[in-house]
Amino acid sequence: MIYRAVFHIDRDDPGAFGLGLTNAANLLKAIPESHYDLVFVFNGPAVTLLRREACAPHHEEIHALQQARIAFKVCRNALSRFNINPEELIEGCEVIPAGIVALIDLQRDGYAYIKP
Amino acid sequence: MIYRAVFHIDRDDPGAFGLGLTNAANLLKAIPESHYDLVFVFNGPAVTLLRREACAPHHEEIHALQQARIAFKVCRNALSRFNINPEELIEGCEVIPAGIVALIDLQRDGYAYIKP
Amino acid sequence: MIYRAVFHIDRDDPGAFGLGLTNAANLLKAIPESHYDLVFVFNGPAVTLLRREACAPHHEEIHALQQARIAFKVCRNALSRFNINPEELIEGCEVIPAGIVALIDLQRDGYAYIKP
Repeated sequence: MIYRAVFHIDRDDPGAFGLGLTNAANLLKAIPESHYDLVFVFNGPAVTLLRREACAPHHEEIHALQQARIAFKVCRNALSRFNINPEELIEGCEVIPAGIVALIDLQRDGYAYIKP
Repeated sequence: MIYRAVFHIDRDDPGAFGLGLTNAANLLKAIPESHYDLVFVFNGPAVTLLRREACAPHHEEIHALQQARIAFKVCRNALSRFNINPEELIEGCEVIPAGIVALIDLQRDGYAYIKP
Repeated sequence: MIYRAVFHIDRDDPGAFGLGLTNAANLLKAIPESHYDLVFVFNGPAVTLLRREACAPHHEEIHALQQARIAFKVCRNALSRFNINPEELIEGCEVIPAGIVALIDLQRDGYAYIKP
């Protein structure tokens, strides 16, 4: 059995962001056999949370999740709207054309939806 | 392939409301072939956001989404609780008996759930 | 047809908590034939809302939902993080090892996800 989930982060709210990171870390601890496929999708104002300085307190936590093959997908529409150059983001982010499309595609493919 | 999603708006929070409208507009741009079925469900205090004056800044945006066949369903339980007469709402809203029932029915029918 | 849903409460936000309780009560009223299976999952800071004093205003409402076989599951990771002894919680809570795992399991089993 594979644990598939998409974490949706869309508000400029460090609390929700931190909660999502904790959720993912707890999940990894709970299923040590590593059968999982976990994706974070950032859209809306939440993309500002991924600028290198903005998420400095979370660098280590995020790096650990990325080492565990958890994907960080970032909506290009939102980057444009908030005038963020992808180069300003922390490393390891994948820019996707539209976060909303990914959220629907992933749920259709059987990923649970989690909104921290 | 058809993009099916339900946007759940329940807080008296113009930010979440605006974000949901933007999500839907981005989705329409991303899938120009128009194979979609999108529904907004409003329940809880969010129904107050749909009073004509309250959502004046969004009239055009909402009208464009409605022209694109996106449904705006509003919970009758919530309208009663917040003393709103359906006639106070913007045009094009469909009053449904219970938002929560629609949220479950739609997900069972394969609609992705999106909480802006 | 059985109405299956999981209500996810994770923020220390009495508004979201109250909204979830109202959602569940409205659902019970809307489907009087009682074919349902409803679960609340509390994780993150929301677990503090379930301490006996904290949720005093909701005791009756919660008791009515529990009498209607609605489950209240509480994440043990979150209880530890917020230094809450399970004995401080209202009666009728089930402590589970990881809320996030339950959220994924339930959705995989066909429960609709509702984030109040």
